[in-house]
Amino acid sequence: MNPFEANLRIPGPTMLPPTVREAGGRQMINHRGPEYAALQDRIVAGMKPFFGTANEVLLLTCAGSGGLEAAVVNVLSPGDRALAVTTGAFGDRFAKVAEVYGAAVRRLEVEWGRAAEPDLLRAALAEERQVRAILLTHNETSTGVTNPVAELAAVAREAAPDALLLVDGVSSIGAIPFEADAWGVDVAVTGSQKAWMAAPGMSFVAVSGRAWAATEVARMPRFYLDLRRHRESAASGQTPWTPAVAVMYQVDEGLRLMQAESPAGVFARHRACGAATRAGLRALGLDLLADPAHASDTVTAARIPEDLDWKAFNAEVKARGVVLAGGQGRLKGRIFRVGHLGFVILDHVLGALAVLEEASLAVGRAVEPGAAVAVARRAALEANLAVVPAEVPA
Amino acid sequence: MNPFEANLRIPGPTMLPPTVREAGGRQMINHRGPEYAALQDRIVAGMKPFFGTANEVLLLTCAGSGGLEAAVVNVLSPGDRALAVTTGAFGDRFAKVAEVYGAAVRRLEVEWGRAAEPDLLRAALAEERQVRAILLTHNETSTGVTNPVAELAAVAREAAPDALLLVDGVSSIGAIPFEADAWGVDVAVTGSQKAWMAAPGMSFVAVSGRAWAATEVARMPRFYLDLRRHRESAASGQTPWTPAVAVMYQVDEGLRLMQAESPAGVFARHRACGAATRAGLRALGLDLLADPAHASDTVTAARIPEDLDWKAFNAEVKARGVVLAGGQGRLKGRIFRVGHLGFVILDHVLGALAVLEEASLAVGRAVEPGAAVAVARRAALEANLAVVPAEVPA
Repeated sequence: MNPFEANLRIPGPTMLPPTVREAGGRQMINHRGPEYAALQDRIVAGMKPFFGTANEVLLLTCAGSGGLEAAVVNVLSPGDRALAVTTGAFGDRFAKVAEVYGAAVRRLEVEWGRAAEPDLLRAALAEERQVRAILLTHNETSTGVTNPVAELAAVAREAAPDALLLVDGVSSIGAIPFEADAWGVDVAVTGSQKAWMAAPGMSFVAVSGRAWAATEVARMPRFYLDLRRHRESAASGQTPWTPAVAVMYQVDEGLRLMQAESPAGVFARHRACGAATRAGLRALGLDLLADPAHASDTVTAARIPEDLDWKAFNAEVKARGVVLAGGQGRLKGRIFRVGHLGFVILDHVLGALAVLEEASLAVGRAVEPGAAVAVARRAALEANLAVVPAEVPA
Repeated sequence: MNPFEANLRIPGPTMLPPTVREAGGRQMINHRGPEYAALQDRIVAGMKPFFGTANEVLLLTCAGSGGLEAAVVNVLSPGDRALAVTTGAFGDRFAKVAEVYGAAVRRLEVEWGRAAEPDLLRAALAEERQVRAILLTHNETSTGVTNPVAELAAVAREAAPDALLLVDGVSSIGAIPFEADAWGVDVAVTGSQKAWMAAPGMSFVAVSGRAWAATEVARMPRFYLDLRRHRESAASGQTPWTPAVAVMYQVDEGLRLMQAESPAGVFARHRACGAATRAGLRALGLDLLADPAHASDTVTAARIPEDLDWKAFNAEVKARGVVLAGGQGRLKGRIFRVGHLGFVILDHVLGALAVLEEASLAVGRAVEPGAAVAVARRAALEANLAVVPAEVPA
């Protein structure tokens, strides 16, 4: 359908805007020189409003999973008790990291597709003594659920005031509101290939004063991901090890675009694209996995109907230039996912829905031509109406 | 002197050739799809001849230092005895990683600027019982010395047949000959921003059968850098965590260029550029740090003369578009370094020497105009004569 470029609708790596692509082709510079230091400082300053923090944001050269490991190993010691609230594959991964490094992890498992309830956390914390850390996933990429971190954090602060709050914000921060300082998040983690519209290769980590204090006593071994080394180097505009400079060029340009749009504009765009995707998929006769009250504005998971030959259907979709993501872990073969974060505008969503409609017709599913894009467009408008009334045509 | 682009003469990140820059600006793809798998498989296949291995080469999203950490934590357990042969800042770093994770490390320290002697290693191994691993640096980036890994490995195999050989080849592999299998290297590590002419952000690790066996009993904790997880994913053309796709685009293009040139051609070019740099710097009245018998063909360190105001001199150099690297660790302020690896041709070396000559004159040093570039050009020719006679003009 689009012979020019695939419509990459996976939840990261996301597509790159034209100027971000150009930035990725820039010549190298000395990573110990002033030009680099200015780049690093600009990125850190640009990210802070999206993290909602006045604390340091550190730049790690690794995937988001490396950032999750950094969050764990820098503040915990083997044997420390941790409570991992898991709502999907990435919550499981976060818990696994802590276990591998010797933490005593209790998992508070929530059914995949549902959000973690603050009351459940309260009950779990009432049972658990001396929890050193609580591991939360903000946006669970595997299920398309956004957990209510503000409320969960409030419960944690009240029921376990000494516990550190470590939050996986890999597929949320920069795309939907996040307030690390106001919520009391101690370590927040994100990745370059998600909201930031850049190539993968870097993880960004915000660290509270409480977390820094914890790094002084934490005994899990770390070297490459040692945040203290990163903080020391950051003081002179550097990283301890050679950073992924070209990814930083792209993140820098992505931030420039996000600042031009304004954080409120970025969030509204994600809200609109999320609402449009959900409405459109439902209009195509698909069930969505996520609890509607906690549906993610960055990724949507749809159940694969029992009577649908997924391979044949996805082949039709791919042939028309749309790339979807499959399910992960226990959801493999049971769902597919549509990413709508970072460089995503309504065009992408409408185009993808048109292709899904065409693929549905191609495999013999009864769908009404045009219905999905029509409801999607209306849903986007309504989503924006709620927050950006100025955009309503007079 | 060059108003178009700086002549980046640091030992990584190295400059990017034009087509590699273009590759860095490509659109993202699904890292779980067939197009990506082909990219990964092509890179792995392309790298094997430069590693001199038929074993697996794994792609890690991290700096070279992360690759060094992967080499250590995947094959050792806390308390294991390791012998670290250190000839500079990067040898120290490798040893430090092993210490941080609880290995009992004995350091065989060699004076910075000299190479590790096989006899010294033999003597050290005669004293040490049950060494589980020997840590070697192939090319010590901080001093401009290339250690004789072939000879050191032969000694290690003979004197400590059960010890694993872990080799830091970050600034050597791909630029100078390396034969992991023939030498008996168990884990060899390199980085994208060195010989491979790509941006930083990835480390590549070759692993022997002995090393894989060691991973099964090694008890140092690892998750993000767990090579077993990487091997498992590699079987289906993937990485366990989202890889630095844009860096891979660049590495892929860099490899294409290296293959077109042929490994022998790549090595000869580095030999010529190394010889030219050394001859030119000496002609400028500078003492080189490295033992001439083990001078590196990827980076050269020159002593800063006592009567030279380094800051003033380097400002003149920078103003003319050449970027040099300073000293590291105990050599800070005592040397400067000139990188000549990856995307380096004689033009770059001659241009840099002309600038150093001009900067010398600007700060009042007595140098003969034209002398440095003349001897550099002759040295390059002689270096190539020794190995590529076909290139001699009739």
